[in-house]
Amino acid sequence: MRMGGSESGSDLKLMGTKLSPFSYRIEWALQLKGIHYEFVEEDLKNKSSLLLQLNPVYKKVPVLIHEQKSLSESLIILEYIDETWKHNPILPKDPLERAHARFWAKFVDEKLYEAANKALFSVGEAEQAKANESMAEALQLVEGEMMRLTKGKTLFGGDGIIGYLDIVLGWVGYWFKFGEEAAGLNITTDSTKYPAFVSWTHHFLQLPLIKNNLPTPGELLRVSRLVMLRCGKITE
Amino acid sequence: MRMGGSESGSDLKLMGTKLSPFSYRIEWALQLKGIHYEFVEEDLKNKSSLLLQLNPVYKKVPVLIHEQKSLSESLIILEYIDETWKHNPILPKDPLERAHARFWAKFVDEKLYEAANKALFSVGEAEQAKANESMAEALQLVEGEMMRLTKGKTLFGGDGIIGYLDIVLGWVGYWFKFGEEAAGLNITTDSTKYPAFVSWTHHFLQLPLIKNNLPTPGELLRVSRLVMLRCGKITE
Repeated sequence: MRMGGSESGSDLKLMGTKLSPFSYRIEWALQLKGIHYEFVEEDLKNKSSLLLQLNPVYKKVPVLIHEQKSLSESLIILEYIDETWKHNPILPKDPLERAHARFWAKFVDEKLYEAANKALFSVGEAEQAKANESMAEALQLVEGEMMRLTKGKTLFGGDGIIGYLDIVLGWVGYWFKFGEEAAGLNITTDSTKYPAFVSWTHHFLQLPLIKNNLPTPGELLRVSRLVMLRCGKITE
Repeated sequence: MRMGGSESGSDLKLMGTKLSPFSYRIEWALQLKGIHYEFVEEDLKNKSSLLLQLNPVYKKVPVLIHEQKSLSESLIILEYIDETWKHNPILPKDPLERAHARFWAKFVDEKLYEAANKALFSVGEAEQAKANESMAEALQLVEGEMMRLTKGKTLFGGDGIIGYLDIVLGWVGYWFKFGEEAAGLNITTDSTKYPAFVSWTHHFLQLPLIKNNLPTPGELLRVSRLVMLRCGKITE
C-alpha cells in the first residue's frame, strides 16, 4: 500500500502494476494533488476476478475505485481526478489549450505508442528500419509541438510544474529508453534531432514526485529483455 | 453555408463533408447550442491546402476554426464546444458520469467502429461470419450499458434531450444501417437482441435537429455500394 500526501481521498483504491506506465500516470496525478489512495497490485498473468468484473471490456489496469464506483482508461481517469479534486490542476484552463493537450495525448497513446512498440519489437533488418523511421516521424511531430505547447517552459504545466501532457508522455521519457537499451536502439536520446524532447525528459525525471515514483532501471531492463527474447528480437 | 440558431459564434467555421458522420457530430452540437457557424465543404479526394495545413497529423475532417485558431478530432471538438459555450450542456455534469460517457465514446469510436468496418467490408464467407460476430459482441456491450447510462430515459441526455453519447452514437444509428442494407446484413435492426439500441435509434432519428441534419438515404446507399463494389464485397 502506497499513500499520497495530506488531503483526504477517502475510499480510494488504484488497481495497477508496479511496472505499468499507465498505472503510474494515476499515481503521479493523485500524489500531485495530495490525495490518499490504496495501491492494489494486480498480477496481469493471473488477473483477479475483481479486475475482470470492473473492466470487462479491456481487462486492463489502471482501474480507479472511488467510493465503490470504478472507472478505467488512464486518460479518462486523469480527467476524472482533475474534475473531482480541482486544486493543483493537471489540464490547462483555457478550452483551446485543453483541446490541444487532449489531441496530443491521444496522438501519444495511439500513433506514438504503436510506432514505439514496432520499433522495440520488430524482427528483421527491413522491418526494423521501417519501424525506426515511423518512430522518428511520430517523435518529430511531438518535438515540433513541444516548444509551442510548453511556451518555452521546462514542462507542459510550467517551469517545474507537472501538467497533463507531462504525465501522459512519461512512458516515452522513461520506459521507452530501457526498451531502446535492451533492443540496441538510440532514437529518443538524439539531442540534435529532438532538443526539446531531450530537455523535457531531463527536467521531468528530475522532479522528486516523478523520481521517487518509477520502477527501477534494472527491473525495466530485465522485463524489456525478456519480451524481446520471447519474440526473437534478441538472443541470450 | 449552413447556419445554426440565434446566439453569436463569431468567426466560427467548420471544415467537413456532407457525408461524414464525424462532421455531423459537430453540426449537431453547434446547432443544439444555437451557435452560428459557416460550413466549409471539403473534397476528401482532393484535399485543400488549408486542411493539410490545419490538420497535418491526420489530414481529416472535421476541423473547427474558431477565432483563427483550429482544432480537430470530433470527440475533442465536442468537449471544446461544451467548454466554450456552456448552455445546453452536452456532457453530463457529474465527474463519474462524464468518465463513463468518455469511456463509451472511446469504445464506440475504436472497438465498435473497427468491428463495424470489418462487418461492412469483409470479403469471403468465413471472414464475414467472424466480422459479424465481432460486431454483434461490440454492439452487445453498448446495449448492456445503454439502460444503465440512459437511466431509462429515451436518450442519453434525457427524455428527448440530446447528450454526448447520442451525438457520438449517431453513425451507428444511421450511417451503419445503409452500409448494412448495401451489404445485405441485418445486425443492428434486431430488436430481440438489441431492444435498447433499437429503441434509442427510433427516438434519436425522430428529433428534428437530427432528422433535418442528415445525408439522404439515397446518397448514403449509393456511396456504401460504391465502396463495396471497389473492395469486391458485392457485384453490380
